Amino acid sequence: MSLAPWRGVVARALHRNRSTADRRYLQLATVRPGGTPANRTVVFRGFQEGTNRLMIVTDRRSEKIPDLRQCPHAEICWYFPKTREQVRLRGPVQVIEAEAPDDALAQARLRAWQALSEASQRPFLGPPPGTPVETPADASLAPTAHPPATFCLVLLDPVWVDHLELRPTPQARTRYERQADASWTQQAVQP
Amino acid sequence: MSLAPWRGVVARALHRNRSTADRRYLQLATVRPGGTPANRTVVFRGFQEGTNRLMIVTDRRSEKIPDLRQCPHAEICWYFPKTREQVRLRGPVQVIEAEAPDDALAQARLRAWQALSEASQRPFLGPPPGTPVETPADASLAPTAHPPATFCLVLLDPVWVDHLELRPTPQARTRYERQADASWTQQAVQP
Repeated sequence: MSLAPWRGVVARALHRNRSTADRRYLQLATVRPGGTPANRTVVFRGFQEGTNRLMIVTDRRSEKIPDLRQCPHAEICWYFPKTREQVRLRGPVQVIEAEAPDDALAQARLRAWQALSEASQRPFLGPPPGTPVETPADASLAPTAHPPATFCLVLLDPVWVDHLELRPTPQARTRYERQADASWTQQAVQP
Repeated sequence: MSLAPWRGVVARALHRNRSTADRRYLQLATVRPGGTPANRTVVFRGFQEGTNRLMIVTDRRSEKIPDLRQCPHAEICWYFPKTREQVRLRGPVQVIEAEAPDDALAQARLRAWQALSEASQRPFLGPPPGTPVETPADASLAPTAHPPATFCLVLLDPVWVDHLELRPTPQARTRYERQADASWTQQAVQP
Protein backbone atom coordinates (compact mmCIF):
# COMPACT_ATOMS: atom_id res chain seq x y z
CA MET A 1 0.00 0.00 0.00
CA SER A 2 1.10 3.56 -0.56
CA LEU A 3 0.43 6.58 1.60
CA ALA A 4 -2.72 8.40 0.47
CA PRO A 5 -2.06 11.99 -0.71
CA TRP A 6 -3.99 13.43 2.27
CA ARG A 7 -1.65 11.73 4.76
CA GLY A 8 0.74 14.67 4.43
CA VAL A 9 -2.11 17.03 5.40
CA VAL A 10 -2.75 15.09 8.63
CA ALA A 11 0.96 14.70 9.45
CA ARG A 12 1.63 18.41 8.93
CA ALA A 13 -1.42 19.44 10.99
CA LEU A 14 -0.38 17.19 13.88
CA HIS A 15 3.14 18.57 13.74
CA ARG A 16 2.18 22.23 13.47
CA ASN A 17 -0.35 21.86 16.30
CA ARG A 18 2.03 19.91 18.55
CA SER A 19 1.86 22.60 21.24
CA THR A 20 -1.91 22.08 21.67
CA ALA A 21 -2.74 19.31 24.13
CA ASP A 22 -5.88 18.14 22.36
CA ARG A 23 -4.65 17.90 18.78
CA ARG A 24 -5.45 14.16 18.79
CA TYR A 25 -9.09 14.75 19.77
CA LEU A 26 -11.55 14.46 16.93
CA GLN A 27 -15.32 14.11 16.54
CA LEU A 28 -16.75 10.84 15.27
CA ALA A 29 -20.24 10.84 13.75
CA THR A 30 -22.23 7.63 13.42
CA VAL A 31 -25.87 6.78 12.72
CA ARG A 32 -27.91 5.37 15.60
CA PRO A 33 -30.12 2.32 15.04
CA GLY A 34 -33.17 4.61 14.92
CA GLY A 35 -31.64 6.48 11.96
CA THR A 36 -30.64 9.70 13.72
CA PRO A 37 -27.03 10.90 14.02
CA ALA A 38 -24.67 10.59 17.00
CA ASN A 39 -21.48 12.56 17.60
CA ARG A 40 -18.74 12.42 20.23
CA THR A 41 -15.11 13.27 20.81
CA VAL A 42 -12.63 10.40 20.53
CA VAL A 43 -8.85 10.16 20.57
CA PHE A 44 -6.84 9.46 17.41
CA ARG A 45 -4.56 6.46 18.15
CA GLY A 46 -2.48 6.64 14.98
CA PHE A 47 -2.73 4.80 11.68
CA GLN A 48 -2.83 1.02 11.51
CA GLU A 49 0.65 -0.05 10.40
CA GLY A 50 1.02 -0.27 6.64
CA THR A 51 -2.45 1.18 5.93
CA ASN A 52 -4.30 4.50 5.68
CA ARG A 53 -6.80 3.43 8.37
CA LEU A 54 -7.29 5.64 11.40
CA MET A 55 -7.38 3.86 14.76
CA ILE A 56 -9.56 4.75 17.71
CA VAL A 57 -10.52 2.61 20.69
CA THR A 58 -13.87 2.15 22.37
CA ASP A 59 -15.74 0.15 24.96
CA ARG A 60 -17.89 -2.65 23.57
CA ARG A 61 -20.65 -1.47 25.90
CA SER A 62 -20.68 2.06 24.46
CA GLU A 63 -23.41 3.29 22.10
CA LYS A 64 -20.92 3.43 19.22
CA ILE A 65 -21.04 -0.35 18.90
CA PRO A 66 -24.76 -0.80 18.10
CA ASP A 67 -24.46 2.28 15.85
CA LEU A 68 -21.60 0.74 13.86
CA ARG A 69 -23.18 -2.70 13.78
CA GLN A 70 -26.26 -1.23 12.09
CA CYS A 71 -24.38 1.25 9.86
CA PRO A 72 -20.66 0.49 9.53
CA HIS A 73 -19.77 3.94 8.22
CA ALA A 74 -18.52 7.00 10.06
CA GLU A 75 -17.35 10.52 9.40
CA ILE A 76 -14.61 12.18 11.38
CA CYS A 77 -14.41 15.94 11.79
CA TRP A 78 -10.99 17.01 13.04
CA TYR A 79 -10.43 20.64 13.81
CA PHE A 80 -6.93 21.97 14.54
CA PRO A 81 -7.31 25.25 16.45
CA LYS A 82 -3.77 26.56 16.17
CA THR A 83 -3.53 26.35 12.39
CA ARG A 84 -7.30 26.86 11.94
CA GLU A 85 -7.80 23.95 9.57
CA GLN A 86 -10.39 21.19 9.43
CA VAL A 87 -10.00 17.69 8.02
CA ARG A 88 -13.11 15.59 7.43
CA LEU A 89 -12.63 11.88 6.71
CA ARG A 90 -15.45 9.53 5.80
CA GLY A 91 -15.47 5.84 5.09
CA PRO A 92 -16.35 2.34 6.20
CA VAL A 93 -15.49 1.23 9.73
CA GLN A 94 -14.37 -2.11 11.10
CA VAL A 95 -14.66 -2.97 14.80
CA ILE A 96 -12.04 -5.41 16.12
CA GLU A 97 -13.16 -7.29 19.22
CA ALA A 98 -11.50 -10.13 21.15
CA GLU A 99 -12.35 -12.55 18.31
CA ALA A 100 -10.29 -10.75 15.67
CA PRO A 101 -10.71 -11.92 12.06
CA ASP A 102 -6.96 -12.40 11.59
CA ASP A 103 -3.60 -12.28 13.39
CA ALA A 104 -2.60 -8.84 12.10
CA LEU A 105 -5.81 -7.33 13.49
CA ALA A 106 -5.47 -9.21 16.79
CA GLN A 107 -1.93 -7.84 17.09
CA ALA A 108 -3.09 -4.31 16.26
CA ARG A 109 -5.75 -4.57 18.99
CA LEU A 110 -3.20 -5.88 21.52
CA ARG A 111 -0.73 -3.08 20.72
CA ALA A 112 -3.48 -0.46 20.94
CA TRP A 113 -4.33 -1.73 24.44
CA GLN A 114 -0.74 -1.75 25.58
CA ALA A 115 -0.22 1.78 24.27
CA LEU A 116 -2.96 3.13 26.62
CA SER A 117 -2.10 4.74 29.93
CA GLU A 118 -3.40 3.02 33.07
CA ALA A 119 -5.92 5.83 33.48
CA SER A 120 -7.23 5.16 29.97
CA GLN A 121 -7.33 1.40 30.51
CA ARG A 122 -9.29 1.58 33.77
CA PRO A 123 -12.78 2.44 32.40
CA PHE A 124 -12.76 -0.76 30.33
CA LEU A 125 -12.61 -2.71 33.60
CA GLY A 126 -15.35 -0.73 35.35
CA PRO A 127 -19.12 -0.34 34.98
CA PRO A 128 -20.62 0.28 31.52
CA PRO A 129 -20.32 3.85 30.20
CA GLY A 130 -23.55 5.83 30.17
CA THR A 131 -25.23 3.84 32.95
CA PRO A 132 -26.41 5.57 36.12
CA VAL A 133 -23.72 6.05 38.74
CA GLU A 134 -24.53 3.75 41.66
CA THR A 135 -21.19 3.70 43.40
CA PRO A 136 -18.07 5.81 42.88
CA ALA A 137 -15.64 4.42 40.28
CA ASP A 138 -13.13 1.98 41.75
CA ALA A 139 -9.70 3.52 41.15
CA SER A 140 -7.96 0.37 42.40
CA LEU A 141 -8.91 -1.76 39.35
CA ALA A 142 -5.62 -3.24 38.18
CA PRO A 143 -4.92 -2.84 34.46
CA THR A 144 -3.69 -5.97 32.70
CA ALA A 145 -1.22 -6.69 29.91
CA HIS A 146 -3.98 -8.25 27.83
CA PRO A 147 -7.07 -6.37 26.70
CA PRO A 148 -10.37 -7.25 28.38
CA ALA A 149 -13.32 -8.37 26.26
CA THR A 150 -14.78 -4.86 26.52
CA PHE A 151 -11.86 -3.38 24.57
CA CYS A 152 -12.47 -2.72 20.86
CA LEU A 153 -10.18 -1.30 18.23
CA VAL A 154 -12.08 0.72 15.62
CA LEU A 155 -10.58 1.23 12.14
CA LEU A 156 -11.87 3.88 9.75
CA ASP A 157 -10.76 3.48 6.15
CA PRO A 158 -11.25 6.87 4.42
CA VAL A 159 -12.66 7.02 0.90
CA TRP A 160 -13.41 10.79 0.98
CA VAL A 161 -11.35 13.48 2.66
CA ASP A 162 -12.05 17.21 2.75
CA HIS A 163 -9.40 19.68 3.91
CA LEU A 164 -10.47 23.22 4.74
CA GLU A 165 -7.99 25.94 5.65
CA LEU A 166 -9.59 28.97 7.32
CA ARG A 167 -6.39 30.96 7.57
CA PRO A 168 -5.65 32.15 4.03
CA THR A 169 -8.16 34.67 2.67
CA PRO A 170 -10.01 33.58 0.64
CA GLN A 171 -10.13 30.22 2.40
CA ALA A 172 -8.78 27.14 0.65
CA ARG A 173 -10.49 23.76 0.43
CA THR A 174 -9.24 20.56 -1.19
CA ARG A 175 -11.17 17.34 -1.67
CA TYR A 176 -9.65 13.88 -2.07
CA GLU A 177 -11.66 10.91 -3.34
CA ARG A 178 -10.59 7.31 -3.59
CA GLN A 179 -11.29 5.65 -6.92
CA ALA A 180 -12.23 2.05 -7.68
CA ASP A 181 -8.59 1.25 -8.52
CA ALA A 182 -7.54 2.63 -5.06
CA SER A 183 -5.91 5.70 -6.58
CA TRP A 184 -6.89 9.14 -5.31
CA THR A 185 -8.20 12.23 -7.09
CA GLN A 186 -7.54 15.68 -5.67
CA GLN A 187 -9.58 18.80 -6.47
CA ALA A 188 -9.73 22.39 -5.20
CA VAL A 189 -13.35 23.19 -4.27
CA GLN A 190 -15.24 26.26 -3.07
CA PRO A 191 -14.95 26.69 0.73
CA MET B 1 -40.51 29.01 28.36
CA SER B 2 -37.93 28.53 31.07
CA LEU B 3 -34.21 28.01 30.69
CA ALA B 4 -33.35 24.32 30.50
CA PRO B 5 -31.10 23.13 33.36
CA TRP B 6 -28.18 22.48 30.96
CA ARG B 7 -28.17 26.15 29.85
CA GLY B 8 -25.98 26.97 32.85
CA VAL B 9 -23.47 24.34 31.69
CA VAL B 10 -23.18 25.99 28.25
CA ALA B 11 -23.06 29.53 29.65
CA ARG B 12 -20.33 28.60 32.15
CA ALA B 13 -18.27 26.77 29.52
CA LEU B 14 -18.46 29.73 27.12
CA HIS B 15 -17.44 32.09 29.91
CA ARG B 16 -14.61 29.97 31.28
CA ASN B 17 -13.24 29.39 27.76
CA ARG B 18 -13.56 33.03 26.71
CA SER B 19 -9.81 33.28 26.10
CA THR B 20 -9.94 30.60 23.39
CA ALA B 21 -10.79 32.00 19.97
CA ASP B 22 -12.72 28.96 18.79
CA ARG B 23 -15.01 28.34 21.76
CA ARG B 24 -18.04 28.91 19.51
CA TYR B 25 -16.95 26.24 17.03
CA LEU B 26 -18.81 22.96 17.36
CA GLN B 27 -19.28 19.82 15.28
CA LEU B 28 -22.67 19.12 13.74
CA ALA B 29 -23.51 15.55 12.73
CA THR B 30 -26.31 14.81 10.26
CA VAL B 31 -27.38 11.78 8.23
CA ARG B 32 -26.85 11.94 4.48
CA PRO B 33 -29.64 10.89 2.11
CA GLY B 34 -27.80 7.57 1.52
CA GLY B 35 -28.01 6.81 5.26
CA THR B 36 -24.36 7.41 6.21
CA PRO B 37 -23.25 10.10 8.65
CA ALA B 38 -21.80 13.55 7.90
CA ASN B 39 -19.89 15.79 10.29
CA ARG B 40 -18.50 19.32 10.05
CA THR B 41 -17.50 22.30 12.16
CA VAL B 42 -20.04 25.11 12.41
CA VAL B 43 -20.25 28.30 14.46
CA PHE B 44 -22.67 28.67 17.38
CA ARG B 45 -24.71 31.87 16.78
CA GLY B 46 -26.41 31.99 20.18
CA PHE B 47 -29.82 30.82 21.33
CA GLN B 48 -33.00 31.90 19.60
CA GLU B 49 -34.54 34.55 21.84
CA GLY B 50 -36.91 33.14 24.44
CA THR B 51 -36.10 29.49 23.59
CA ASN B 52 -33.51 26.78 24.27
CA ARG B 53 -32.81 26.36 20.54
CA LEU B 54 -29.25 26.69 19.29
CA MET B 55 -28.77 28.79 16.16
CA ILE B 56 -26.31 28.13 13.37
CA VAL B 57 -26.34 29.46 9.82
CA THR B 58 -25.70 27.68 6.56
CA ASP B 59 -25.82 28.05 2.80
CA ARG B 60 -28.91 26.54 1.15
CA ARG B 61 -26.55 25.00 -1.43
CA SER B 62 -24.49 23.15 1.20
CA GLU B 63 -24.83 19.41 1.77
CA LYS B 64 -26.40 20.00 5.18
CA ILE B 65 -29.66 21.01 3.52
CA PRO B 66 -30.47 17.73 1.70
CA ASP B 67 -29.25 15.89 4.83
CA LEU B 68 -31.69 17.78 7.06
CA ARG B 69 -34.54 17.58 4.58
CA GLN B 70 -34.27 13.78 4.60
CA CYS B 71 -33.56 13.43 8.34
CA PRO B 72 -34.42 16.57 10.35
CA HIS B 73 -32.34 15.54 13.38
CA ALA B 74 -28.80 16.44 14.34
CA GLU B 75 -26.32 15.92 17.13
CA ILE B 76 -23.85 18.57 18.18
CA CYS B 77 -20.54 17.70 19.82
CA TRP B 78 -18.99 20.73 21.48
CA TYR B 79 -15.58 20.38 23.02
CA PHE B 80 -14.11 23.13 25.18
CA PRO B 81 -10.33 22.67 25.24
CA LYS B 82 -9.44 24.99 28.11
CA THR B 83 -11.81 23.46 30.66
CA ARG B 84 -11.62 20.01 29.03
CA GLU B 85 -15.35 19.43 28.91
CA GLN B 86 -17.67 18.14 26.21
CA VAL B 87 -21.34 18.93 25.70
CA ARG B 88 -23.37 16.80 23.30
CA LEU B 89 -26.81 18.04 22.28
CA ARG B 90 -29.22 16.09 20.15
CA GLY B 91 -32.65 16.94 18.85
CA PRO B 92 -34.86 17.89 15.94
CA VAL B 93 -33.73 20.63 13.57
CA GLN B 94 -35.69 23.29 11.72
CA VAL B 95 -34.26 25.10 8.68
CA ILE B 96 -35.52 28.66 8.16
CA GLU B 97 -35.24 29.86 4.55
CA ALA B 98 -36.46 33.06 2.90
CA GLU B 99 -40.06 31.79 3.14
CA ALA B 100 -40.13 31.62 6.94
CA PRO B 101 -43.18 29.96 8.53
CA ASP B 102 -43.89 32.95 10.78
CA ASP B 103 -42.77 36.49 11.58
CA ALA B 104 -40.73 35.57 14.65
CA LEU B 105 -38.65 33.14 12.60
CA ALA B 106 -38.29 35.60 9.71
CA GLN B 107 -37.04 38.18 12.21
CA ALA B 108 -34.63 35.68 13.76
CA ARG B 109 -33.23 34.90 10.29
CA LEU B 110 -32.86 38.60 9.47
CA ARG B 111 -31.06 39.33 12.76
CA ALA B 112 -28.76 36.33 12.25
CA TRP B 113 -27.78 37.71 8.85
CA GLN B 114 -27.18 41.21 10.16
CA ALA B 115 -25.04 39.84 12.99
CA LEU B 116 -22.57 38.29 10.50
CA SER B 117 -19.35 40.05 9.58
CA GLU B 118 -18.93 41.03 5.93
CA ALA B 119 -16.37 38.27 5.52
CA SER B 120 -18.93 35.73 6.79
CA GLN B 121 -21.69 37.15 4.57
CA ARG B 122 -19.63 37.06 1.37
CA PRO B 123 -19.69 33.27 0.67
CA PHE B 124 -23.50 33.35 0.53
CA LEU B 125 -23.22 35.66 -2.47
CA GLY B 126 -20.55 33.63 -4.30
CA PRO B 127 -20.40 30.23 -6.03
CA PRO B 128 -21.88 27.15 -4.30
CA PRO B 129 -19.73 25.60 -1.56
CA GLY B 130 -18.09 22.29 -2.45
CA THR B 131 -18.09 22.90 -6.22
CA PRO B 132 -14.84 22.89 -8.19
CA VAL B 133 -12.95 26.17 -8.14
CA GLU B 134 -13.16 27.67 -11.64
CA THR B 135 -12.26 31.25 -10.87
CA PRO B 136 -10.88 32.86 -7.72
CA ALA B 137 -13.55 34.08 -5.28
CA ASP B 138 -14.70 37.62 -5.95
CA ALA B 139 -13.83 39.62 -2.84
CA SER B 140 -15.71 42.66 -4.16
CA LEU B 141 -19.19 41.15 -3.71
CA ALA B 142 -21.10 43.73 -1.72
CA PRO B 143 -22.92 42.39 1.35
CA THR B 144 -26.50 43.56 1.73
CA ALA B 145 -28.71 44.49 4.66
CA HIS B 146 -31.17 41.76 3.70
CA PRO B 147 -30.24 38.09 3.56
CA PRO B 148 -29.95 36.48 0.12
CA ALA B 149 -32.05 33.42 -0.71
CA THR B 150 -29.03 31.21 -0.05
CA PHE B 151 -28.97 32.18 3.62
CA CYS B 152 -30.56 29.69 6.04
CA LEU B 153 -30.95 29.84 9.79
CA VAL B 154 -30.80 26.40 11.40
CA LEU B 155 -32.39 25.80 14.81
CA LEU B 156 -31.59 22.73 16.91
CA ASP B 157 -34.01 22.05 19.75
CA PRO B 158 -32.23 19.73 22.21
CA VAL B 159 -34.13 16.86 23.81
CA TRP B 160 -31.01 15.06 25.12
CA VAL B 161 -27.85 16.65 26.48
CA ASP B 162 -24.74 14.90 27.79
CA HIS B 163 -22.09 16.83 29.72
CA LEU B 164 -18.70 15.17 30.24
CA GLU B 165 -15.99 16.75 32.36
CA LEU B 166 -12.54 15.26 31.78
CA ARG B 167 -10.80 17.33 34.39
CA PRO B 168 -11.88 15.86 37.74
CA THR B 169 -10.57 12.35 38.39
CA PRO B 170 -12.60 10.21 38.14
CA GLN B 171 -14.36 12.05 35.32
CA ALA B 172 -17.90 13.33 35.80
CA ARG B 173 -20.77 12.93 33.36
CA THR B 174 -24.32 14.24 33.62
CA ARG B 175 -27.21 13.48 31.30
CA TYR B 176 -30.27 15.66 30.79
CA GLU B 177 -33.41 14.39 29.05
CA ARG B 178 -36.52 16.31 28.12
CA GLN B 179 -39.79 14.70 29.13
CA ALA B 180 -43.16 14.75 27.38
CA ASP B 181 -44.32 17.58 29.68
CA ALA B 182 -41.21 19.63 28.63
CA SER B 183 -39.60 19.24 32.05
CA TRP B 184 -36.02 17.92 32.27
CA THR B 185 -34.54 14.99 34.16
CA GLN B 186 -30.91 15.07 35.24
CA GLN B 187 -28.81 12.01 36.09
CA ALA B 188 -25.13 11.33 36.86
CA VAL B 189 -23.91 8.55 34.53
CA GLN B 190 -20.68 6.58 34.11
CA PRO B 191 -18.14 8.47 31.97
